[in-house]
Amino acid sequence: MKIRRSTRLVDMTYYLLQNPRRLVSLTFFAERYQSAKSSISEDLVIIKQTFEQQGVGTLQTIPGAAGGVKYIPYMDHEEANELITELCEQLSDSNRILPGGYLYMTDLLSNPRYINGAGRLFASLCAQQEIDVVMTVATKGIPLAYAVANYLNVPVVIARKDNKVTEGPTVSINYVSGSSKRIQTMTLAKRSLKEGANVLIVDDFMKAGGTIQGMISMLEEFKANVIGIGVLVEAVDIEERLVENYVSLVRLSAVDTREKVIDLEKGNYSLPALQKEELVTEE
Amino acid sequence: MKIRRSTRLVDMTYYLLQNPRRLVSLTFFAERYQSAKSSISEDLVIIKQTFEQQGVGTLQTIPGAAGGVKYIPYMDHEEANELITELCEQLSDSNRILPGGYLYMTDLLSNPRYINGAGRLFASLCAQQEIDVVMTVATKGIPLAYAVANYLNVPVVIARKDNKVTEGPTVSINYVSGSSKRIQTMTLAKRSLKEGANVLIVDDFMKAGGTIQGMISMLEEFKANVIGIGVLVEAVDIEERLVENYVSLVRLSAVDTREKVIDLEKGNYSLPALQKEELVTEE
Repeated sequence: MKIRRSTRLVDMTYYLLQNPRRLVSLTFFAERYQSAKSSISEDLVIIKQTFEQQGVGTLQTIPGAAGGVKYIPYMDHEEANELITELCEQLSDSNRILPGGYLYMTDLLSNPRYINGAGRLFASLCAQQEIDVVMTVATKGIPLAYAVANYLNVPVVIARKDNKVTEGPTVSINYVSGSSKRIQTMTLAKRSLKEGANVLIVDDFMKAGGTIQGMISMLEEFKANVIGIGVLVEAVDIEERLVENYVSLVRLSAVDTREKVIDLEKGNYSLPALQKEELVTEE
Repeated sequence: MKIRRSTRLVDMTYYLLQNPRRLVSLTFFAERYQSAKSSISEDLVIIKQTFEQQGVGTLQTIPGAAGGVKYIPYMDHEEANELITELCEQLSDSNRILPGGYLYMTDLLSNPRYINGAGRLFASLCAQQEIDVVMTVATKGIPLAYAVANYLNVPVVIARKDNKVTEGPTVSINYVSGSSKRIQTMTLAKRSLKEGANVLIVDDFMKAGGTIQGMISMLEEFKANVIGIGVLVEAVDIEERLVENYVSLVRLSAVDTREKVIDLEKGNYSLPALQKEELVTEE
């Protein structure tokens, strides 16, 4: 049974959103809807234009026999600004101040709105990069890492500060926490990462960067490549930063625990323009 | 500028998928697209029919002035069977056997395909329930809990087996691990849960159910209501089960560590039919 354009548009949108960054052949859609590839091509143009107009993504075309179309999630400047402004407002609530100059962020890190927003923003920041896996360390970075991985459609790898039995053989490394200068241990299951994997490191909070430096050392053990480092919030008032190239969404410039004032600003991220190539599809 | 139906359909589908179980008023869409509510209603009928035909969800209508439309994610029997069959196949690989009869599942728990699939299946299983929050205990259950919460559009609350400083005041309870009979501690930040909250408990693996019983005890401390308990994999060969009402997606009936054979079957879940009410929208 041939399927109407309107039905196709809804279902194709659903399908592409469920499968970000995965190549879908035109033949797949043509068979799914019993429709000509020329009609499918027209549908894809409409979807691509709509996504781009709304600033939520684009469709990339890979030409040739093994080609097809890929949905690339994106967040435009306007939406990113709104998200970061809202995050800063939420974070500046003085009730969030915890002993040691930490901020209570667990509620934001567990709220799908912020976590998915930050995930899509990080995915936009590395829209042009080949990433095989997102890595974080337990526990608080996991929802964010998972959200980023979801938009990149890659697995998450979670290092741990304990050593649970149910992971099989593991690799452990020691690292120095930058702010407390204490030696800590980080463990990662041997099976969880392949040699040469391209890894995006993600965490919720960075002070001096000791934990992230720990993840970098771990990745050296696995002979994996660090493609990028993304943190939701970075503390700015740091004597010595252990990590150089990282992207932050929010900067925590000062926490005055006596006056109960929290100063926040936009992080150092800079959103690349969305690559809007023309949709070329063959029949 | 008035917007074409095809563009509206793509964008509305995107918007609804990004906001599951959230009430969106017809006025919102009418203004977003500068279109008459009657056109919006027709669009919604097309989206609803497509979602239902594909078995991926429905649109629910709340009539009246404060009304609107809600996207309810769903997974039909066929897709659920495929997912569970594939999970069982993946899990039956004898290389997964770890000391103590555990199974290595980390790769599956970090793969968006399985995790989102299981998340959507759990969301379908409680499509008719009011859930305020999904709870799990660190670490391995987090991705699954997050995926379920994403489809339910509610926050995740994560209990921990340590007591990190950055959570603020916490509540701790002791519980007995059912299989090892050891006393363990579980901690949850005081701010993370409101009294009277309706909670869905989610975990990746259940043996006797001690950890889940621990979460139930924790929820009693918070005067919260356990609406349901969902586990990805349950071990069947258990002397004494501590938890009664739970839903599992996969049953691990036997692990023969000597012969390296793993027996798996479909869990005890039973998928309710999708409630397909008629779409009533007023103008």
